[in-house]
Amino acid sequence: MTKTILLKNRPEGKPSISDFEFISEEIDTALAKGELLLETKYVSVDPYLRGRMSDAKSYVPPFQLNKPIQSGVVAKVLESKNEKFASGDYVSGMLNWQTQQVSHGEGLTKVDPSKAPLSAYLGILGMTGLTAYTGLTQIGKPKAGETLVVSGAAGAVGSVVGQIGKILGLKVIGIAGTDEKIELLKNKFGFDAGINYKTTKDMKAAIAEAAPNGVDIYFDNVGGPISDAVLVNINRLARIIVCGAISVYNNTEAPKSLSVQPFLVKNSALMQGFIVSNYTDKFPEAMKNLSTWLAEDKLKYSETIVKGFDNIPNAFIDLFEGKNKGKMVVEL
Amino acid sequence: MTKTILLKNRPEGKPSISDFEFISEEIDTALAKGELLLETKYVSVDPYLRGRMSDAKSYVPPFQLNKPIQSGVVAKVLESKNEKFASGDYVSGMLNWQTQQVSHGEGLTKVDPSKAPLSAYLGILGMTGLTAYTGLTQIGKPKAGETLVVSGAAGAVGSVVGQIGKILGLKVIGIAGTDEKIELLKNKFGFDAGINYKTTKDMKAAIAEAAPNGVDIYFDNVGGPISDAVLVNINRLARIIVCGAISVYNNTEAPKSLSVQPFLVKNSALMQGFIVSNYTDKFPEAMKNLSTWLAEDKLKYSETIVKGFDNIPNAFIDLFEGKNKGKMVVEL
Repeated sequence: MTKTILLKNRPEGKPSISDFEFISEEIDTALAKGELLLETKYVSVDPYLRGRMSDAKSYVPPFQLNKPIQSGVVAKVLESKNEKFASGDYVSGMLNWQTQQVSHGEGLTKVDPSKAPLSAYLGILGMTGLTAYTGLTQIGKPKAGETLVVSGAAGAVGSVVGQIGKILGLKVIGIAGTDEKIELLKNKFGFDAGINYKTTKDMKAAIAEAAPNGVDIYFDNVGGPISDAVLVNINRLARIIVCGAISVYNNTEAPKSLSVQPFLVKNSALMQGFIVSNYTDKFPEAMKNLSTWLAEDKLKYSETIVKGFDNIPNAFIDLFEGKNKGKMVVEL
Repeated sequence: MTKTILLKNRPEGKPSISDFEFISEEIDTALAKGELLLETKYVSVDPYLRGRMSDAKSYVPPFQLNKPIQSGVVAKVLESKNEKFASGDYVSGMLNWQTQQVSHGEGLTKVDPSKAPLSAYLGILGMTGLTAYTGLTQIGKPKAGETLVVSGAAGAVGSVVGQIGKILGLKVIGIAGTDEKIELLKNKFGFDAGINYKTTKDMKAAIAEAAPNGVDIYFDNVGGPISDAVLVNINRLARIIVCGAISVYNNTEAPKSLSVQPFLVKNSALMQGFIVSNYTDKFPEAMKNLSTWLAEDKLKYSETIVKGFDNIPNAFIDLFEGKNKGKMVVEL
């Protein structure tokens, strides 16, 4: 029997378990030419999936109701009628939340379990690492000696951004929501400073203190009041990389923040939203550098691995409470 | 006697006449080598001067209390000991709000009254035209067929931005605050559509209706709720040129607006603040094109000319009530 997770309701505010439906059925595993039968090994859960669960216009079409949810998946090829892949290969790509599935092979990439753990291909050597690398280098255009602030710093993308920042010679300040995460930033990931936004009363002053020369680059994963506090500390010609806004994804009313325009005008500053797929031409460079840094032990990563197919929705929901440290992955 | 206008108080909120002080005195007109004696002919009043009247960190240092205020000025050379300028020449540059003054000549440019009216060198062939041209071309990167929205569209910069947009093949929608201004946008400046934000209840819907293909470029002079309504209508890869935020310059508390981050992420959109001096390398190209278009009658401009030195502060204050149509200039 194959298990599948469907989108049952479009979440109102924070997603809940009742927004998902589990079904079990026999699927047709007879392969046509070009097809593969895949067994899911690791499933990526990511904040951006929340956007696809809504019906609003966005960069990717919304998930359809009563259809399988998709995300980044690493799977084993059980059987192949596609000449690019052989039985026993491992692949990564956008696939259904499903224990087994048939694919045409389009958009799948072969991954090598001897070079890195399979889950890494959903994280540091997958979309997470590519997002951190392309956002920081292509929009942030970092110059050694500059000051970088990262919000959501203990998250999957944020922790990689900070480490790349250090490799490139930046002063790196991370913002996160527990003292344990702040310790991790400083001791494991080599950030210069960390600020716990949940226990800091005056974020504006705390950022000014940690960044006495002002903020040149801000890698923004969260939006909301944290970003407001960074904004008032930016330097002339600052670059703000807008990667995500997890603090407001579940808002049912349009959130209000400090008006950014006066700060952008005063400082001739840039804010640029992006998704990783805008920079596919930079992926080879990114993968080369990320793999090298990983092999040289210059890049560390955290994973929160949740076990069991049935726990995929809960793992996803837990993202919005910051229960993950680094990349959240479900292992089957 | 020479009259001078000093900054007496840093304005709280909207500037008032009591923030300025007029003095009359004999000035020393004996010239050292390299100096010029200038007689002021036209004085530019601009929203950005409000920023220099505050004590806050910005791209130019604040005006000092009890010192002359400066802005763009066209003056006649009465006497010269500087070899670059002769008596009878006209010059433009950043000069004091003063009927006569002595200058070292640095930063002054000779202007030709036979090619355009002198006041034009403070507007369409001065900072106004250069701001419109460089912002739209360097940040907006317009492609023929795209849709451009301009706020503060009947203002000095806005009306030039829209006309350049039309010359470059864009669909151009202007936002302004009176029906008279809207008529001007459509009939004089050739905008495709105009929206009166003071009489329009649902700005979001009005912009969507005027821009059925969405907004590719937004030239923002105002910030605040008008910009919020444009933001929800932007297309993927939209460029938002942040030139000014006149709607919030007089706020004494930090203004709140719609959070921009979710829109920037969803659309991989850009917001870039700027000042014209970031693009000095483009000034020759800009002046060449602006002069050509002006000579070909492709570019029209409005001026609100206020007469009399004593009216400079009032003209400046009137900017914040939208009393100007196009460039506000004081003629002596």
